[in-house]
Amino acid sequence: MSDLEGLFLDHAAWEAAVADGDPVVYRVQSSPVPETPRELPQSITTISAGATGGELWMTKGHQHPDPQGEIYLALHGTGGLLMFDGDEHRWLDMTPGTIGYIPPGWAHRSVNVGDDAYSFLAVYPGSAGHDYGWVLEHGMGARAYRTGDAFELRPYGG
Amino acid sequence: MSDLEGLFLDHAAWEAAVADGDPVVYRVQSSPVPETPRELPQSITTISAGATGGELWMTKGHQHPDPQGEIYLALHGTGGLLMFDGDEHRWLDMTPGTIGYIPPGWAHRSVNVGDDAYSFLAVYPGSAGHDYGWVLEHGMGARAYRTGDAFELRPYGG
Repeated sequence: MSDLEGLFLDHAAWEAAVADGDPVVYRVQSSPVPETPRELPQSITTISAGATGGELWMTKGHQHPDPQGEIYLALHGTGGLLMFDGDEHRWLDMTPGTIGYIPPGWAHRSVNVGDDAYSFLAVYPGSAGHDYGWVLEHGMGARAYRTGDAFELRPYGG
Repeated sequence: MSDLEGLFLDHAAWEAAVADGDPVVYRVQSSPVPETPRELPQSITTISAGATGGELWMTKGHQHPDPQGEIYLALHGTGGLLMFDGDEHRWLDMTPGTIGYIPPGWAHRSVNVGDDAYSFLAVYPGSAGHDYGWVLEHGMGARAYRTGDAFELRPYGG
């Protein structure tokens, strides 16, 4: 949770969550394939179920400094793939077996919208890189909130 | 079957199979993602169960003209991933959930070693390309044969 500074809209709720045990929001397991040109590394990300200030737990989100495509394959649980090109945002519901394609130039974030852990496989070109600062500067176009048994997308600014 | 000319060691058995209904050895379903630089297209290949002259049904196999990595994820059935760099060959058993990584520069072929259809997801850089002629010229280092309830690899030349 402490690694997600500046990403949840409700800063006070984020501070309280960090103070209250700093829970693990998500973990990433990476393949041994090197992140270098011509290689195609993979990772599996598992996002815990939860919300902070009502905002569903999510990954930081990132942009590729070298714009190249990436795929996500949902493995377990229910989630969403939020994409943002700096202007328009798109949302894709993810359930086991769904493949989400992230076109070159779109920032991307995953969200757990369910009550169990949500995990997915990512496959990405080794030369694409990861820019996490882009999201702090530009946002992701929308935020996902828990609403009873469902969820809804709201404007990024709240 | 007729598209696999020159690939099975037993040419007479191949000719007989073509004459006897020219069966479908495998099918490929491709994603709508373009095969162009920076994109990351995907496909699902399904290989029927069978053997020709004892040699298990397989894909043509190919090399990437622009050497880049590729991943295969087994979805259904049991198969194998045969890789060949022109000198050494490697074999990876594939069952649902197995991810096989094909390093840049290695030709690759999939084989159905089971009694049901074997299918797998492939993810590959859009600029890698497909060279099927390389295998006709250089071979794949080994061939997979049915042996009772199991299979074995034999030298490519027979």
